[in-house]
Amino acid sequence: MVMFLHHRLDPASRLIRLMCAEYGAPLNMSEVSPWKREAEFTAISPAATLPILIEQGAAPIVGPLATIHYIEQNHAPTTVSGLIPAEPATQGEMWRIIEWILFKLNDEVTRYVLEEKIGKRERKQGSPDTAVLRAAKANLSEHLLYFNWILGSRTWTVGEEISLADFALAAHLSTLDYLGDMDWASAGEVRNFYSRMKSRPSFRPILADRLIALPPSQHYANLDF
Amino acid sequence: MVMFLHHRLDPASRLIRLMCAEYGAPLNMSEVSPWKREAEFTAISPAATLPILIEQGAAPIVGPLATIHYIEQNHAPTTVSGLIPAEPATQGEMWRIIEWILFKLNDEVTRYVLEEKIGKRERKQGSPDTAVLRAAKANLSEHLLYFNWILGSRTWTVGEEISLADFALAAHLSTLDYLGDMDWASAGEVRNFYSRMKSRPSFRPILADRLIALPPSQHYANLDF
Repeated sequence: MVMFLHHRLDPASRLIRLMCAEYGAPLNMSEVSPWKREAEFTAISPAATLPILIEQGAAPIVGPLATIHYIEQNHAPTTVSGLIPAEPATQGEMWRIIEWILFKLNDEVTRYVLEEKIGKRERKQGSPDTAVLRAAKANLSEHLLYFNWILGSRTWTVGEEISLADFALAAHLSTLDYLGDMDWASAGEVRNFYSRMKSRPSFRPILADRLIALPPSQHYANLDF
Repeated sequence: MVMFLHHRLDPASRLIRLMCAEYGAPLNMSEVSPWKREAEFTAISPAATLPILIEQGAAPIVGPLATIHYIEQNHAPTTVSGLIPAEPATQGEMWRIIEWILFKLNDEVTRYVLEEKIGKRERKQGSPDTAVLRAAKANLSEHLLYFNWILGSRTWTVGEEISLADFALAAHLSTLDYLGDMDWASAGEVRNFYSRMKSRPSFRPILADRLIALPPSQHYANLDF
């Protein structure tokens, strides 16, 4: 079984957990805090990115892009259809949306919220900076408007078939929801989308995640929110 | 022939030009300024990312990740070996380094330098902010230390074979060098690496690039710098 270094609220780690659950690939999970930047961890991941896959006797696979490709090439099912569309234009759209979520949404929203609410706590550096959280919230509204618009004309973020991009978006939404940063009343189509994602069996372990020192928002695990 | 929307100093566009030149895939190039955010452009690329590939009758392929996968799947040579390693751990390392360059190096260095030196000029918004350029320069030193360390133990950024990651790094270095932001005297192994990359035939069109209003640094096109 592949050893999987992750943090339970890290959205890239959640994406890979969801991908593996959909593919029926078991993971031997081990938790690490990327915010503490411990020497043992940054020796493997100098940019402090998660997740990390380690197969015995092989070099580690580090970060979301490397992990996605590794799982797709070595653990994708052969009997059911995968999460990466074969049709070139649809696959192109999937990578565009994944790039948006993993790097733009993350850099403008999720990364800041995690650093302020978990990173600072784990390093015992005081309370969140409300100015940073306000900026992240304003950025999040813009991102939700965009995905609301996308989902107004498509069943899933990339088209009529579910793809890895949907799990990437749901992973970020789930982290933000855990931390109480999702305003579902104004999320429009994104709320319907997340409701469908939340109901999938692959999502159950994500909804059962708890940080002892930081309980989730009240409706976090409710399928009806 | 594929229509290719790019900017001649955009590092992601340069990466794809290099990849296509190595693969012998011709591109029908058309230039656009991502910094002006013209409505016609953001309608295709809402995040204002480049490059963009358009094949007649198909939906556009937008941004570096989508473009890399599209070229690899539809235009990779079958007679010579490609730029994406087949061995899983080596390919994983390639994606880790590509993620670092396209998103970390870009977000901490190249993006700022381009915005200050070209974006502001193109939008007629005055001169570069020297505080921002100083911060980018300090970040660049850290990145160069890292790649200097990497290249101290490997022939190429990922291992003993050249890969797409090398073209990604060379694309960023070439943009920074054009703009006079590379301090080669302190670049160590990175300088030897760039010298090897610069000598490849695929690099010639990049070295011939000129912005009329902004000439390159003196040694930009010299193979001996």
